[in-house]
Amino acid sequence: MKVGIIGATGYTGLSLLRDLAGRPSTEVTLVTSRKEAGGKLIKIHPSLAGYPGYRELILEDPNLLEKIKEKEPARFPEVIFLAVKHKAAMALAPRVLNLGSKVIDLTGDFRLKEKELYPKWYKFEHECPEYLSQAIYGLPELHRDKIKNARLVANPGCYPTSVILALAPLCQEGLIRQGTTIMVDSKSGVSGAGREPSLGNIFCEVSENFRAYKVVGHQHTPEMAQELSFLAKGRISLSFTPHLVPMNRGICTTTYVLVQKVSGLSQITEIYQDYYKNEPFVRLKEQGQIPETLDVRGTNFCDLGLFYDEDEDVVKIISVIDNLCRGASTQAMVNLNILSGAEENLGVNLVALRP
Amino acid sequence: MKVGIIGATGYTGLSLLRDLAGRPSTEVTLVTSRKEAGGKLIKIHPSLAGYPGYRELILEDPNLLEKIKEKEPARFPEVIFLAVKHKAAMALAPRVLNLGSKVIDLTGDFRLKEKELYPKWYKFEHECPEYLSQAIYGLPELHRDKIKNARLVANPGCYPTSVILALAPLCQEGLIRQGTTIMVDSKSGVSGAGREPSLGNIFCEVSENFRAYKVVGHQHTPEMAQELSFLAKGRISLSFTPHLVPMNRGICTTTYVLVQKVSGLSQITEIYQDYYKNEPFVRLKEQGQIPETLDVRGTNFCDLGLFYDEDEDVVKIISVIDNLCRGASTQAMVNLNILSGAEENLGVNLVALRP
Amino acid sequence: MKVGIIGATGYTGLSLLRDLAGRPSTEVTLVTSRKEAGGKLIKIHPSLAGYPGYRELILEDPNLLEKIKEKEPARFPEVIFLAVKHKAAMALAPRVLNLGSKVIDLTGDFRLKEKELYPKWYKFEHECPEYLSQAIYGLPELHRDKIKNARLVANPGCYPTSVILALAPLCQEGLIRQGTTIMVDSKSGVSGAGREPSLGNIFCEVSENFRAYKVVGHQHTPEMAQELSFLAKGRISLSFTPHLVPMNRGICTTTYVLVQKVSGLSQITEIYQDYYKNEPFVRLKEQGQIPETLDVRGTNFCDLGLFYDEDEDVVKIISVIDNLCRGASTQAMVNLNILSGAEENLGVNLVALRP
Amino acid sequence: MKVGIIGATGYTGLSLLRDLAGRPSTEVTLVTSRKEAGGKLIKIHPSLAGYPGYRELILEDPNLLEKIKEKEPARFPEVIFLAVKHKAAMALAPRVLNLGSKVIDLTGDFRLKEKELYPKWYKFEHECPEYLSQAIYGLPELHRDKIKNARLVANPGCYPTSVILALAPLCQEGLIRQGTTIMVDSKSGVSGAGREPSLGNIFCEVSENFRAYKVVGHQHTPEMAQELSFLAKGRISLSFTPHLVPMNRGICTTTYVLVQKVSGLSQITEIYQDYYKNEPFVRLKEQGQIPETLDVRGTNFCDLGLFYDEDEDVVKIISVIDNLCRGASTQAMVNLNILSGAEENLGVNLVALRP
Repeated sequence: MKVGIIGATGYTGLSLLRDLAGRPSTEVTLVTSRKEAGGKLIKIHPSLAGYPGYRELILEDPNLLEKIKEKEPARFPEVIFLAVKHKAAMALAPRVLNLGSKVIDLTGDFRLKEKELYPKWYKFEHECPEYLSQAIYGLPELHRDKIKNARLVANPGCYPTSVILALAPLCQEGLIRQGTTIMVDSKSGVSGAGREPSLGNIFCEVSENFRAYKVVGHQHTPEMAQELSFLAKGRISLSFTPHLVPMNRGICTTTYVLVQKVSGLSQITEIYQDYYKNEPFVRLKEQGQIPETLDVRGTNFCDLGLFYDEDEDVVKIISVIDNLCRGASTQAMVNLNILSGAEENLGVNLVALRP
Repeated sequence: MKVGIIGATGYTGLSLLRDLAGRPSTEVTLVTSRKEAGGKLIKIHPSLAGYPGYRELILEDPNLLEKIKEKEPARFPEVIFLAVKHKAAMALAPRVLNLGSKVIDLTGDFRLKEKELYPKWYKFEHECPEYLSQAIYGLPELHRDKIKNARLVANPGCYPTSVILALAPLCQEGLIRQGTTIMVDSKSGVSGAGREPSLGNIFCEVSENFRAYKVVGHQHTPEMAQELSFLAKGRISLSFTPHLVPMNRGICTTTYVLVQKVSGLSQITEIYQDYYKNEPFVRLKEQGQIPETLDVRGTNFCDLGLFYDEDEDVVKIISVIDNLCRGASTQAMVNLNILSGAEENLGVNLVALRP
Repeated sequence: MKVGIIGATGYTGLSLLRDLAGRPSTEVTLVTSRKEAGGKLIKIHPSLAGYPGYRELILEDPNLLEKIKEKEPARFPEVIFLAVKHKAAMALAPRVLNLGSKVIDLTGDFRLKEKELYPKWYKFEHECPEYLSQAIYGLPELHRDKIKNARLVANPGCYPTSVILALAPLCQEGLIRQGTTIMVDSKSGVSGAGREPSLGNIFCEVSENFRAYKVVGHQHTPEMAQELSFLAKGRISLSFTPHLVPMNRGICTTTYVLVQKVSGLSQITEIYQDYYKNEPFVRLKEQGQIPETLDVRGTNFCDLGLFYDEDEDVVKIISVIDNLCRGASTQAMVNLNILSGAEENLGVNLVALRP
Repeated sequence: MKVGIIGATGYTGLSLLRDLAGRPSTEVTLVTSRKEAGGKLIKIHPSLAGYPGYRELILEDPNLLEKIKEKEPARFPEVIFLAVKHKAAMALAPRVLNLGSKVIDLTGDFRLKEKELYPKWYKFEHECPEYLSQAIYGLPELHRDKIKNARLVANPGCYPTSVILALAPLCQEGLIRQGTTIMVDSKSGVSGAGREPSLGNIFCEVSENFRAYKVVGHQHTPEMAQELSFLAKGRISLSFTPHLVPMNRGICTTTYVLVQKVSGLSQITEIYQDYYKNEPFVRLKEQGQIPETLDVRGTNFCDLGLFYDEDEDVVKIISVIDNLCRGASTQAMVNLNILSGAEENLGVNLVALRP
């Protein structure tokens, strides 16, 4: 299978290249970069130099996609990942689809169903809203069947992956107390901020420091509400706050839900066990065990811990993922597996790098 | 002024010694350690070796307090800090008081007014509940006047300091929506776990990792509820979750409150500005500015940021402190200042060590 | 192929289990732990819970090896890794060999050829010196041919791996100036200190801190001298200092050599290019490029950078490895590959986890 | 005393402001920034907002120094610190001196006595070499007497401070073996790289990573050679390599010296004890004790550990400093104390912030 990555120099691109190196019978035949076009991929990412398939890859100019296909159609990718910035994918996806390749988009550009949400949350008007309805939200646990036949997969955001998996069973079951709001407190490693230097992500501003950011209005919020409301068959109300942790990778989300009609932790546990009983990439912790980001580093797993504060009728769900893997590249590769009819875990690394 | 520290080898003791070195006309005449009695203080804490007043100090056995006083009454401390483990202060405080010295206790042993709460939250029966009523909860912003005449100050816990200061104005003003629960999500550096080695706090289990702990039932919870209910003149309901951040110092608490009758962020801001207008150690961030733990490292400041999610009627308060300073030693020194009639900021370091 | 790990609860054991999960047709049929015997492996290492082959493994008591073999001879490992503490392998290796399995020992117990060196550097008398001569020092670049037929492989220490690979070409070529001493300055992540809690490896004593340790007399020193002298056909004199870096994994070694008869950096570069031209796991950086530990994290690569200080006739070699992978488990798996006649890179991960 | 800082927005400027806040009777009356002129100082550095003297300070344009003095001569600083980039101080120092203020320059622009060294090591021609002879190298241990009367102090570099203090006694005593080269291996926290974002200093490229940089040719090298040769009364030959540690602050330097005529560690120790017996800011560790950067964080101390590898006749000196304090701002304040006739330790913080 031939695949390509548009935007290969960032951390998401790097993580995709790591994942794809482990996928059998897979060849990366296209990598692009606007800024580094013409240069060798491994000059930007020396950590890839040990994989033979990457040693000679040259970064191409994404503006020349059509010419590249024309020149060597046989090597043009069947599936292309978009690992670019938000807003850049809107222009790229239609071009790639027109070239006959499928698209797995890792930006937020096709995740929301209602185009009106883009100006509010992303601060731009959507340029091709006609694609929103055909884009499939690529969370396999929710939309596996639709992904199979998708031409355009909107790979979920890192935060929403951790939040939706934490809340899906509760929302579907209808146990959230009427009139209350779910509080979602997420903590992410710094790689989520990308590889572009800025004062906010230099070492001395992050290390030994902890802070929230975008306390109100983070663009991942509507994606959570959309998918959870879909599950609940009614509007789900939540308030989301992201924080920056002085570590490279990992997201830990603590979700607070005021519940109704809950008899105890065991009832909650059964609901989750049932919901996830056939899911290969969701692991429920045993009672009292607390998920840790290091246990999922470098993998596609989402570990969930369930807790119940009886005094206050509050269910707390703790979910951890690797923001670059389950939150981006590996989930994208699982989507590739699904839409290409391969085993869902083909090439997927099952053991974390710990410590 | 002569002061002493019982339990000088832990991080709280070390932090106290750093603070007291900066306090004019203050002599530490007693430091104790059960395990290291007889040894030099600076052998345990080489970082103190540059301060002349500590170079010759020998760690004493806390069992011999009475003999130490008998031998050299003139050098016995007027005020003694208890920087020991929970449960150990119950036995020590009465002994120190009987020797005529005042006590500033940094454990939780005298913070709760109702003795019944100890078995539930601390898993022990209180041994001298008769002292609970005379102990003053040492949060100057709430109890300054009572601290002045206190013989026994119960220095607040690190988490409760960050939580109570975040919520005090809202609780007093009565803006919390009836029937809801405040969600309190705290993140702490590792020094809060003390200096005792255990699998949970070795470097490789913490670095590049993030996890919650004691998700339900942390012993600091009742202290928050007690003080906030006192302010609200009614029961305040909250659910608290602590997390471990891979950094040495600092607490960041994000508090989620469903409010009622709030017109907007400016109303909230005014309430906080008014409440803290004369407080030297609480700094309100300007609108949109987000508090960072690094800005308070090594100081007694609590920085507060206020946010309002209009869509959901949720007020989010972000509070940051240094868990060892404002959360323990420096707050204790401020209490020393208050009860000894000194300026409240005597010897208090006003500039953080950043980066 | 059936393999076993004696000492599976430490970080080396964990890293071996991660590596072996990626090796085709390999079954781990035995894991042991003195302290945790009887418990589930994934209870100690939840990060392994996603790999089906490990889910049901129970930790056995290493004292019962003979009984385990007797009971189920067909499942007994053909090769057993010893991932125990120094000194413990001396007693285990003969027992395993007597049971007919081959041994790959990750301790230092069989690395030195001269038994007299053990009391000086390891502070113990060797209990079975008769095995020292048959043990093969498992650095493939030096002893590949002997490893093929080995029954007992002494897997190199982490520091020596980084040092010997840095110096082998220079020593063989005889360019070290007579009468001088090579200075070897190594920096290691904390996982090298193991998973046993102690004051020296708790987070707050390591993070934001940097220190040397065992400044004179580190037990890895004679191993370096032994192998390099063997290559140089004469005594190689070196002085070694290890340091602790606040990070989990990685070793960076800077080696300083006063040289003679060197015309310039290009001469040195050619010598190294020639020496390593067929080596799959040594990567020479291009001129001026500096090796980074993050580029080899989770892999078996050793990246080398060569520098020449013309003013002082000093060659500086910078070598980086992952201390748990190339410095322990992955090198051990490569040794398994060699002695079992498999491809040397069978199951070996070729892409680092970065960032 | 009125002082000023040109270049107040970087980490050196911030560290100076922290130090000066602790100096009695000192007023900072001038802070400048080219980029942020017109803005409030505490907007850039919120960590300073708790110190009353800084709350109203406005960043001035350094191009307007003369006008500022003309307008309010009484408030113009008696001493001005230059905390700018290398090469920028050359133009500023003469201007400040012409305005009648003394200069403490924290760049390298006036540290070297021979102007010919600038093109080689700093890659620029010196613009005012006539000032090089009157500039005093501000290492108090070496040049205290000359600093007293200096108008222009060239504050030492961070690395050279750690190296010169490590080697001064040995060089003066003449124990370095003829024909050999001292190997100097330094490791620094990231704040030494400044506050300007670049790919090399973002969190994800530094954390969990370790690397050398400028392996040959670092511009601090000639400064070390100059001062040590001056002490040795003969050319001292050394080769220097800096490395980046994933931590904010601290330098640890390991220096390797092949010695002659040394009877043992006690001889070396006596030489150092004697050399530093009256020095308030150099602390010799007891035999076997290893210096740690965390013990000097936030202070002006240099801790030295002495080791002797008898097998190889190698003396290893380990020196640690805080790169921003002893390596920049606090040493600069001590120079201010000396040239203004104050006590050398006036306002100097004597206790590290640990952990």
